Amino acid sequence: MPIIECVPNISEGRRPEVCEALRQAVRSVTGVRLLDASSDPAHNRSVFTMAGEASPVKAAVLALIASALEHIDLRTHTGEHPRLGAVDVVPFVPIEGVTMTECVGLAKDTAAEVASRFQIPVFLYEDAASSPARRNLEDIRRGEFEGLAAKMASPEWAPDFGPSRPHPAAGAIVMGARMPLIAFNINLATDRLDVAKKIASAIRHSSGGFRFVKAMGVALEDRGIVQVSINLTNYEKTPMHRVFDAVRREAERYGVAVLESEIIGLTPQAALVSAAEHYLQLARFSSNQILENRLRDR
Amino acid sequence: MPIIECVPNISEGRRPEVCEALRQAVRSVTGVRLLDASSDPAHNRSVFTMAGEASPVKAAVLALIASALEHIDLRTHTGEHPRLGAVDVVPFVPIEGVTMTECVGLAKDTAAEVASRFQIPVFLYEDAASSPARRNLEDIRRGEFEGLAAKMASPEWAPDFGPSRPHPAAGAIVMGARMPLIAFNINLATDRLDVAKKIASAIRHSSGGFRFVKAMGVALEDRGIVQVSINLTNYEKTPMHRVFDAVRREAERYGVAVLESEIIGLTPQAALVSAAEHYLQLARFSSNQILENRLRDR
Repeated sequence: MPIIECVPNISEGRRPEVCEALRQAVRSVTGVRLLDASSDPAHNRSVFTMAGEASPVKAAVLALIASALEHIDLRTHTGEHPRLGAVDVVPFVPIEGVTMTECVGLAKDTAAEVASRFQIPVFLYEDAASSPARRNLEDIRRGEFEGLAAKMASPEWAPDFGPSRPHPAAGAIVMGARMPLIAFNINLATDRLDVAKKIASAIRHSSGGFRFVKAMGVALEDRGIVQVSINLTNYEKTPMHRVFDAVRREAERYGVAVLESEIIGLTPQAALVSAAEHYLQLARFSSNQILENRLRDR
Repeated sequence: MPIIECVPNISEGRRPEVCEALRQAVRSVTGVRLLDASSDPAHNRSVFTMAGEASPVKAAVLALIASALEHIDLRTHTGEHPRLGAVDVVPFVPIEGVTMTECVGLAKDTAAEVASRFQIPVFLYEDAASSPARRNLEDIRRGEFEGLAAKMASPEWAPDFGPSRPHPAAGAIVMGARMPLIAFNINLATDRLDVAKKIASAIRHSSGGFRFVKAMGVALEDRGIVQVSINLTNYEKTPMHRVFDAVRREAERYGVAVLESEIIGLTPQAALVSAAEHYLQLARFSSNQILENRLRDR
């Protein structure tokens, strides 16, 4: 049974009855599980995490958009978080038994249906992007809802699907496919923030480190320690164990030990199994040998 | 959703139609998955691996015994493997969301029903044993079916449930609860069998090693290497990482490197997650953070 995760970001985080209606739209679809729903009033934004097979996940996204169209009007929407759509961002994420290519296909398929059913323009991003200039969410969203009509007047910002002007109340949607993100923090047995910052700089992509690592050094004041706070954007190509060992070695160079690590939120099973395989030097191991996986099949 | 594994060993491995009838008896129970069924003609024995919640697993064991009574008569049974019952051994194994104590309760509950419904004597073993003398399967089974009537004539071998004499055709059943067994082999980059044997001796319980390790050194002739072949009988109390690191250190002492390790057959997810937690120094991690586990919950 393939598992696709989908994490829609919706521009509503203040009205509890609307948030509940949006959640209910997802829950109404058989074969999809709403794993998490968190709403931020300051951002006036909600993030849903759902999972299931391709077809029910697509149905849940369509139901969610229909509900958002009914309840959200961006012309009167305010909040701290940048947004260009009532349903702002919809990434499809391969978890198990499904390839990135299949998730890209699902994103395009869903985008086409959204455009024709709701007359909302859709931009494809990340692994589904139609050009490198559209890979990054921030580039597509720059100017936000308020600047969207002017931005789309340029042929350069023609949408991938749907009308060439924003939907009056719902703006546009950024839809695509990406790997699951793992929030992986490594705490150091020191209060030296400069060490955490130097290590973060050493391992992150933007300053010469690993391709799929974003990192920064932060102080955990209440505990009197520092942390290398890491986002792993592709745990298959930049695995946890490689990042962990690199942080440990860099820390040693300053006479500092790794105190512990932590995973914030959810992780795919495969990220942990791959760490076990690495350190135990496991050969010829298949996820099919995990008893719980057998129980989930079919 | 709690998961209990059950691994009945049945004294029939030659007649395909009987093996199929036995498998069908298990499959007929809703809520139980037959994960594996292997039959050995030389042993004239089959091993089934099934899993599910307590109540369907119990129902499947009862259905299996009813089918075995219909098809198997130990008075005409021959085979290389020792056995004292048509259904010979039935261990209940805690996998997830269930304690050993609950599996012991399930074993006793099932044993009571087997005794009253089928008039077969039942001996409890391993964690369900009524005395230390009955923990080991081999001690209970010594003398086999052919010696069972004489053995049970002694008050010392009164069964835990059921009649004090063997069932004429089906003998007795050894039922109980134990931890899942992990078959974990570590291959060494050498052809020196003495090194594998010395390491096996160093890590196994019987000669002073870890409490829940059985191990032996064997040569893998075709590959020109040797192997420390390990059965881990309680991965919670003697985890894989501790055994692996001990083998690596012992091998170093002979100038030998670990080539690789391998898991034969199935393993609970927790055994691998625990290795990842150890090597990555993961703190405050819960199996609830594994995305696939969320999907399985209710």
